[in-house]
Amino acid sequence: MRPTAAVVTVGSELVEGLRIDTNTAVIARALAQRGFSVVEAVSVADDTEPLTRTLTRLTRECSLVVTTGGLGPTHDDVTREASASALGRALVRSAELEALLQGVAGRHQDLRAAEQVLTQADVIEGADVIKPTTGTAPGQVVALDSGATLILLPGPPTEMLPMLQAALAKFPVSSAEPRELGVVGLSESDAQVVVQRALVGVSDVGFTVLARPGDVRVLLIDEGIGEDALNALAAAVATALGHHCYSDDGRDLAQVVVDDAVLHQTTFGFAESCTGGTVAARVTSVPGSSQVFVGAVVAYANEVKASLLDVPPGLLAQYGAVSEESARAMAEGAREALSVDIAVSVTGIAGPDGGSPEKPVGLVWLAVATAEGSAAVEKRFLAGSRQAVRDRAAATALDLLRRTMRSIPLNET
Amino acid sequence: MRPTAAVVTVGSELVEGLRIDTNTAVIARALAQRGFSVVEAVSVADDTEPLTRTLTRLTRECSLVVTTGGLGPTHDDVTREASASALGRALVRSAELEALLQGVAGRHQDLRAAEQVLTQADVIEGADVIKPTTGTAPGQVVALDSGATLILLPGPPTEMLPMLQAALAKFPVSSAEPRELGVVGLSESDAQVVVQRALVGVSDVGFTVLARPGDVRVLLIDEGIGEDALNALAAAVATALGHHCYSDDGRDLAQVVVDDAVLHQTTFGFAESCTGGTVAARVTSVPGSSQVFVGAVVAYANEVKASLLDVPPGLLAQYGAVSEESARAMAEGAREALSVDIAVSVTGIAGPDGGSPEKPVGLVWLAVATAEGSAAVEKRFLAGSRQAVRDRAAATALDLLRRTMRSIPLNET
Repeated sequence: MRPTAAVVTVGSELVEGLRIDTNTAVIARALAQRGFSVVEAVSVADDTEPLTRTLTRLTRECSLVVTTGGLGPTHDDVTREASASALGRALVRSAELEALLQGVAGRHQDLRAAEQVLTQADVIEGADVIKPTTGTAPGQVVALDSGATLILLPGPPTEMLPMLQAALAKFPVSSAEPRELGVVGLSESDAQVVVQRALVGVSDVGFTVLARPGDVRVLLIDEGIGEDALNALAAAVATALGHHCYSDDGRDLAQVVVDDAVLHQTTFGFAESCTGGTVAARVTSVPGSSQVFVGAVVAYANEVKASLLDVPPGLLAQYGAVSEESARAMAEGAREALSVDIAVSVTGIAGPDGGSPEKPVGLVWLAVATAEGSAAVEKRFLAGSRQAVRDRAAATALDLLRRTMRSIPLNET
Repeated sequence: MRPTAAVVTVGSELVEGLRIDTNTAVIARALAQRGFSVVEAVSVADDTEPLTRTLTRLTRECSLVVTTGGLGPTHDDVTREASASALGRALVRSAELEALLQGVAGRHQDLRAAEQVLTQADVIEGADVIKPTTGTAPGQVVALDSGATLILLPGPPTEMLPMLQAALAKFPVSSAEPRELGVVGLSESDAQVVVQRALVGVSDVGFTVLARPGDVRVLLIDEGIGEDALNALAAAVATALGHHCYSDDGRDLAQVVVDDAVLHQTTFGFAESCTGGTVAARVTSVPGSSQVFVGAVVAYANEVKASLLDVPPGLLAQYGAVSEESARAMAEGAREALSVDIAVSVTGIAGPDGGSPEKPVGLVWLAVATAEGSAAVEKRFLAGSRQAVRDRAAATALDLLRRTMRSIPLNET
């Protein structure tokens, strides 16, 4: 049984939906790595009474509670007061901190503002102080009689982050980094079933499957199994996922494609219609992609398919832009126009309009052209909104490129 | 005293710090608009027991509790079960939902995966069902005997967002929709100062400035001022922001560009180097963009700038790809190659490598070519990571296109 922890973020802007909280994720990862099971992450308003109630509850339920925010000098910074109240301890003005803050206080013409600055020198009885490196609010670490620990950190990430390590100093890093596997061409639930089967009978490891359109991630989490066993498991899960698993080290699909191409000294490019630049944008988000990615033609209008990709207008008229024939001609045309080793084309109907009974929204044709002169062609029916269809189509294009470079048949699982 | 509400986000990936929660902010704003005071936003793991405890506590403390996540088909989707347990009600399989899900279940090769899909047809006794428009998980609205309401929504934003309005249907909007102004070419803090000045002496209105690279949003929030006064204020703030304000109705920059082009019957396209398809991808994310967006050449390698955009190799050799001359030639070449009314080019150094003292990372040249034959040219030094430089460059390209169509001088504020 791992010790439990909670993260409390304090700020009315958080519960009012005016700011996205990013501190929780950073703190939660640091806690997980130190062997804590984070059971709750809660945001509360700048209001003494509910914050006191939350801290009272969590310091009873958890071994460790970390708060961020509400340590500044203004009237709505109430975390010190609420914490002292929750623990039944006094707040004591620290002469040393007060001396440090006098300089900042002196810059305020207003006496009340100056006095408020000094409230940051108030320390919970028995707490260790963590001095700020940026900002003015010190952090506090309080050892409770129950054996639990309460840590108070400021809210602005630039102030909080430098203090986090020091605040957690007494909790050594105990577990391996989570392993992250990338999966393409499998649904979230199919991936889940495969991973569950691969992990039958294994304990002390957790997993979660995260999905966005076109991208599924499997996270394997060390819950006591240790780094070597986690690595062995990651390899076993990757094998079970087969060719759908494109990485076992957290790299995304675009990064894998670029790395593979660099390894094989293969240049590539795209002819994009319905994805409208998404495939190229994903590839070029990878630093160093210019070594292998030459360019792309975003051929949204049929005229561009004809003029820049040399797709015969008669072919477009006969079969339509979303067809096996057009996809093939686009890939071959892009390979020629961009002078690349491999070109992948995507043409489809992203919606919400433009679908028909024969060619519904979500229908996407893709083709791969290589030096062998032949163009492998794939037909997919992709689900979801316009953006989801585009994202899934882009992932499929990158997957076809990966499979082509690794000589994996397009449809082999 | 406003009625209280809580938002519960369910997912181990959230408490483990593996994903940033963005649902809470959207839901919290929708609740605030309906007169609720959101007192707590809490993330809990995919674990029945602690989730049951959280839901038991919050349904007692609050008038309204909204959960997201944990409604999918996998073994760690436990929100239905935990909610039923917290409320002391049974889960009943809905024949109607089961029929709807049979199609999805049938697509799974694995019987267990198929059966798991059908668990999404389990409904809390007495709940109203909200059918999904995307995804497979239905939402549920449960009226409690206490007068409180519990709403269950799926976790993926693309599934959750379309259901939110329907789920909140019985709570009328009591304050005006926040007004959202889009700002380009101003920093977050500069925008903040402009808005603060414009709002001096005005009460019962709140505002917040949200920033991502290349995009700043100003939200004006009705805190009692009423819809008409809020609209008048939005107009005043837009005027104060000048040409930097590209929309006062929440539309994003790509949408504004497409709408303007449709209005002016103007066709356009891009020549992208450092943005690598990002500009085209942003434009084509807008439904109906095919009316005006013709295509783009992602000319990452210099050979493509020469072959498809007709940039003289001698010019590239003399001035470099990141130069006024190349930007101009790329825009003119794209206008020709794509046969468009306006072409915008972007060429720069996104980093992290490739910078030099004369041409540092973040240097970006952009040019606009129109029927007038002249190409307006902009030089920018953009801050941040590779992705931030690319996003800022893409926003600048779209802004130049907007300014050209509206005859706003490129540098006029």
